[in-house]
Amino acid sequence: MTKPKHLTGDIAAINEFIDRFDTFLLDCDGVIWTGDHVFEGVPETLELLRSRGKKIVFVTNNSTKSRQEYLKKFTSLGIQSDVEEIFGSAYSSAIYISRILKLPRPKNKVFVIGEAGIENELRSENVPFIGGTDPAFRRDMTPEDFKGIADGTLLDPEVGCVLAGLDFHINYLKLSHALQYLRRGAVFLATNVDSTFPMNHNFFPGAGAVSTPLAYATGQQPLALGKPSQAMLDAIEGKFRLDRARTCMVGDRLNTDIKFGIEGRLGGTLAVLTGVNSQADWEAPDAVAVPAFYVDRLSDLRAAAAQESARAPGN
Amino acid sequence: MTKPKHLTGDIAAINEFIDRFDTFLLDCDGVIWTGDHVFEGVPETLELLRSRGKKIVFVTNNSTKSRQEYLKKFTSLGIQSDVEEIFGSAYSSAIYISRILKLPRPKNKVFVIGEAGIENELRSENVPFIGGTDPAFRRDMTPEDFKGIADGTLLDPEVGCVLAGLDFHINYLKLSHALQYLRRGAVFLATNVDSTFPMNHNFFPGAGAVSTPLAYATGQQPLALGKPSQAMLDAIEGKFRLDRARTCMVGDRLNTDIKFGIEGRLGGTLAVLTGVNSQADWEAPDAVAVPAFYVDRLSDLRAAAAQESARAPGN
Repeated sequence: MTKPKHLTGDIAAINEFIDRFDTFLLDCDGVIWTGDHVFEGVPETLELLRSRGKKIVFVTNNSTKSRQEYLKKFTSLGIQSDVEEIFGSAYSSAIYISRILKLPRPKNKVFVIGEAGIENELRSENVPFIGGTDPAFRRDMTPEDFKGIADGTLLDPEVGCVLAGLDFHINYLKLSHALQYLRRGAVFLATNVDSTFPMNHNFFPGAGAVSTPLAYATGQQPLALGKPSQAMLDAIEGKFRLDRARTCMVGDRLNTDIKFGIEGRLGGTLAVLTGVNSQADWEAPDAVAVPAFYVDRLSDLRAAAAQESARAPGN
Repeated sequence: MTKPKHLTGDIAAINEFIDRFDTFLLDCDGVIWTGDHVFEGVPETLELLRSRGKKIVFVTNNSTKSRQEYLKKFTSLGIQSDVEEIFGSAYSSAIYISRILKLPRPKNKVFVIGEAGIENELRSENVPFIGGTDPAFRRDMTPEDFKGIADGTLLDPEVGCVLAGLDFHINYLKLSHALQYLRRGAVFLATNVDSTFPMNHNFFPGAGAVSTPLAYATGQQPLALGKPSQAMLDAIEGKFRLDRARTCMVGDRLNTDIKFGIEGRLGGTLAVLTGVNSQADWEAPDAVAVPAFYVDRLSDLRAAAAQESARAPGN
């Protein structure tokens, strides 16, 4: 495998890198921010890319927020953005269900395990659903639940799909419902299957904490609508009509972001070292994916601006 | 592979089968009962085996109950038993921790995900623990939890082991604590890794719903102390000093019960069709394990009594 090119500190290489692409697909957690902390220099880096005419799309596997909620987060963190620039796994899932899966009535309802982000995106695509943040599902199991879930009297006969995403309120009641719907033939989807969720400079259980128990209990893997699933890239391509050869995926995770870009035959992949993976991970003999380029942090691309101002008249 | 011998209705074969063994290890769920319903004729079948001088040991992967609690269940269901006849995965785990793992102080505490059965067995072996049924862990995550779990201020520095068992109150807070202890080097144990839990003639998420998200997030498999783990059979053998050649494992699951008996080189394995697996499962080309004998239901062994009474004087 080719060794990834290290761009940090190499102004000429950074400029050449930026010139190669029209579109940058950017992961958020571990690239733009960690939790609610924006990495220094990132807003200026995004402005630099925009000032050079680059299209920016934020591509995130985090399904807990809808695009509107993401926009609020961007704004509150001082990052200029637009809802049309944001592409999350909740949105990707809603689009897949409404435009590709097209569940026939009467079994066209989705049983959701996840947070409000999924619900908002399903609503925006007019997909009927139950579960999610409904308080009726945020409680302990009772003997009546065991009985009614087992014999089906507590199940909604219109559910034809289970959508599993990161749920901070995961419980046995939701898992039991989902398992039973799957056993009765519901389509098994996951917004994403990230094993961990980065927060407060550490790792918490990811969306996989919701889908792996169901996959293990049913012997069936969900179709994942987040990175590295190519279903997500197809949806992005359909929406933005991008030229894959002139598109670069930027991310911190080899097994989601970088794999996503490589399998999607994008023109390039850029790894940053502010998140999950380090240089040792892609240098390992069993590396899951190797990026084409890497920087220590996204804001290292700002060095390109130095050259720009050096070139500018009066300097 | 040899075809399993079907004993149902064959009095001579049943008698020959019973005579081959001194000890019967019996799974409970799916063999003796399902949920709180005892299968018809089972108490009489156990009495028949005892009357022929057979040792009976109930071997269950269900960790939600301690041996004492199991004894209460047996008694309430009209099955005569003794606490010394009961061997559950919670007990097996407690024995493993106290007698084999022997965690050195000060990191000798266990973080438990699971129900009271695990706690009671850990107490009986004087193993210190936190978590479990403690109400402090039965609630939603707060931003302070994310922070304190991430930076370690909310973690107990004495925890050196995570024990994951079936927990009807599983939540994100418990999974987050467990993940962080594992990331800090705690030993990863599971009472068992059953994918499903039989209840009300149907299936609910098993202990694997607790351990698979942690295994997926850490890339590390737990040491399981339930069937088919041979750690459990070693513990049973140590306690009962059984002659493996004259011991038969009786169960409904190929991937736990029957595999357990075969890998433990027991003299025999008997499958019953009142639980998870059916004849088609061991006849499949990729069958995980094939029993030596099978009956439609455990009480089919009672036919042996008919011959006995036929032999009795006065008949």
